[in-house]
Amino acid sequence: MPSLNPAELIVKKRDGGRHSAAELEALIQAVVSGEIADYQLSAWLMACYFRGLDQDETVALTRAMLASGKAVNLGRLRRAKIDKHSTGGVGDKVSLCLAPLVAACGVVVPMIAGRGLGHTGGTLDKLEAIPGFRVDLKMRAFERILGRLGTAIVGQTDELAPADRKLYALRDVTGTVESIPLIVASILSKKLAAGLDGLVLDVKVGRGAFMKDLQAARVLGRALVRVGRKNGLRVVALLSDMNAPLGRTVGNALEVREAIEVLQGGGPADTRELTLALGTEMLLLAQRTNAGSARRELEQALASGRALDLLRRMITAQGGDARVVDDPARLPRARFQVRVSAPHDGVVGNIDARELGSCAIGLGAGRLRADQRVDPAAGIELLARPGERVQRGQPLAILHAARRSQTVPLLARVAAAFELRKRPSPARPLILGRIRS
Amino acid sequence: MPSLNPAELIVKKRDGGRHSAAELEALIQAVVSGEIADYQLSAWLMACYFRGLDQDETVALTRAMLASGKAVNLGRLRRAKIDKHSTGGVGDKVSLCLAPLVAACGVVVPMIAGRGLGHTGGTLDKLEAIPGFRVDLKMRAFERILGRLGTAIVGQTDELAPADRKLYALRDVTGTVESIPLIVASILSKKLAAGLDGLVLDVKVGRGAFMKDLQAARVLGRALVRVGRKNGLRVVALLSDMNAPLGRTVGNALEVREAIEVLQGGGPADTRELTLALGTEMLLLAQRTNAGSARRELEQALASGRALDLLRRMITAQGGDARVVDDPARLPRARFQVRVSAPHDGVVGNIDARELGSCAIGLGAGRLRADQRVDPAAGIELLARPGERVQRGQPLAILHAARRSQTVPLLARVAAAFELRKRPSPARPLILGRIRS
Repeated sequence: MPSLNPAELIVKKRDGGRHSAAELEALIQAVVSGEIADYQLSAWLMACYFRGLDQDETVALTRAMLASGKAVNLGRLRRAKIDKHSTGGVGDKVSLCLAPLVAACGVVVPMIAGRGLGHTGGTLDKLEAIPGFRVDLKMRAFERILGRLGTAIVGQTDELAPADRKLYALRDVTGTVESIPLIVASILSKKLAAGLDGLVLDVKVGRGAFMKDLQAARVLGRALVRVGRKNGLRVVALLSDMNAPLGRTVGNALEVREAIEVLQGGGPADTRELTLALGTEMLLLAQRTNAGSARRELEQALASGRALDLLRRMITAQGGDARVVDDPARLPRARFQVRVSAPHDGVVGNIDARELGSCAIGLGAGRLRADQRVDPAAGIELLARPGERVQRGQPLAILHAARRSQTVPLLARVAAAFELRKRPSPARPLILGRIRS
Repeated sequence: MPSLNPAELIVKKRDGGRHSAAELEALIQAVVSGEIADYQLSAWLMACYFRGLDQDETVALTRAMLASGKAVNLGRLRRAKIDKHSTGGVGDKVSLCLAPLVAACGVVVPMIAGRGLGHTGGTLDKLEAIPGFRVDLKMRAFERILGRLGTAIVGQTDELAPADRKLYALRDVTGTVESIPLIVASILSKKLAAGLDGLVLDVKVGRGAFMKDLQAARVLGRALVRVGRKNGLRVVALLSDMNAPLGRTVGNALEVREAIEVLQGGGPADTRELTLALGTEMLLLAQRTNAGSARRELEQALASGRALDLLRRMITAQGGDARVVDDPARLPRARFQVRVSAPHDGVVGNIDARELGSCAIGLGAGRLRADQRVDPAAGIELLARPGERVQRGQPLAILHAARRSQTVPLLARVAAAFELRKRPSPARPLILGRIRS
């Protein structure tokens, strides 16, 4: 291991040089030990933003970040361990459906999820809307539940890829989040630490997503697939539309309710469809089946109630009140529900996902800074969806909030987020692409 | 004054945006107050490295850095206040000659100088080779000596442009020194704080300089001239060769001796010529004369002994032993002098300034880190100069060191720094260009 000269490392990357695996290992060790100053690390991150990291560097960085901590030990579980990761969207409750559904088909789904930030939601916040549900399990407890049920959803601990936690916190406040290789290393190091065999990525594309256009999403998807593969992880990426929110709800308890509906065999068509598409990829990565039979297996797990039952058991295992599954009234409910009406007749075109995500923050359902609390009951119910015809005065959405005053400044914004057209626009596909190495 | 959101400011520059004067003011205030974290500042500096600052931004940054501290108060001095600043070279003792020489011609030269770092030397280190000489004067003492003698040379204090001190220290360890607008703002904010009317820049060009080629040096020179002008400072820049060291000495006491020789009317031709060229520009900026009579005035000040006398008085005023001027044996002298001989016959081509500067560090004459001490007696005397014919075994240089062991690894390096050619190469001009707004 060469001794680390942080200033030289920064200048090397600044001038477009390539880091060796040993350099990146030394850097990440220095990050964990605190030997490199934050001000040097952030200058290096900004140099990476401009100069990039090539595939070998990204592979090495991922590996070094993985090696910075412990890994979940799932070696004694014989079944395939497959997870799904989304790059972040609005109304995306698919993880809540997918973990019990795929586990009900015999695949282990050890899901390490995140919290919402900015206009995008987070799976942990959604689960915590279930009374009593705990996401801060110790690694041993996580392993135990996975062994017993085949799935559990927890937050990242300090034990897993600690270098990523530190780097991410710094990137968040230094304008260095938006770098493909840094994103790839961050996602994959955490997923590798979870002991996975395969990973399905849901790369969101559109106004409400981190990637605004298909081309950028493809670049990210390809990098994730290739770097994952180089680190021994089978990866497939679906590119999915995130111009409009997914489904009919944005907000934590509201989304749990929608996820339960999907697991009951109902729910909005797009939420159900994305769940089945991603679930199919997960079963394919588990190498158990072909696409047609994978989908049928998932549909049977929904129809038979096995997936729903697994959700009940997972909630119980993680300390939550599983009665919410059959009695959603037990979920937190906001004191105020305020209707937003259509200002004129029309056909709903797009619904601006980014704007609704931003309005949801105003209602208390999301956060702008990592240290803010969220209101589990707050959020937005969409009563009209793209392609539906509405008349003037007809409700487009219902805002859920603890205080009526929170809704007042948002009424016009939420109404304006619904594009009302004279003629219907052509329906957009939900799945825009698939990337496999 | 808008409230500062550091992360937004970083992203703005990262994405190629332009900062308003108010934003830069708020940023520099936050630097001085410590409100902005170093890790955010360094990310912003790296974004500036890649995206640059345009002229208006550089003017505003310079002004904000000037406003971050006090300014030297020279208002009661009626004479023009003119200084010289060099971008750093090897063997460059011109400031020691220039300050007393130009002051002897009736111009106030309030010189705030720096220390050596890396292969380049610093005027403060050279002056401190004079027994007793103090460069850490309070601002009031500086003003008093200027009023009495017309010149003094001191170090930067915490009172002058404190934001620059902090920014420079951070840039030094985060690979963000090499940015033209940041260099310009750093130089000019300090010079403006010194209460100048005019500034002559010596932009060094070549292997031993920060700017390796003429084009890059021109870009820096033009930026300094224009941004200075916009801040009400008359600026002219000379571009001068720094492929070979200036004069015949590299090392602090050795260079003081050479500077005294120049003020006595002798010294190496190039040191004398650069002193007169820069001095002429200083008198022209003082608007007292034309180029021909300016040069004659300087030559008379040398011939009459007035310049040398002013050096004596400046040394005394700053606590030093002025007897060194007439008895250079009073300067510190290294215990060991070791000759480096020509490996074969030839004509001296270039002498690698950067390499000799680097060897001087090995002898103790310079430093790699700002907190290292220097040996005032150490250095290199050049016995052969470009264009001179030498025979095998003839001495090329003498190394001065406190310990013989310091010289051993450098003998071959110093010899190799002398290019020995079969035929003389065409003489290079010393002054390569002049930039004036």
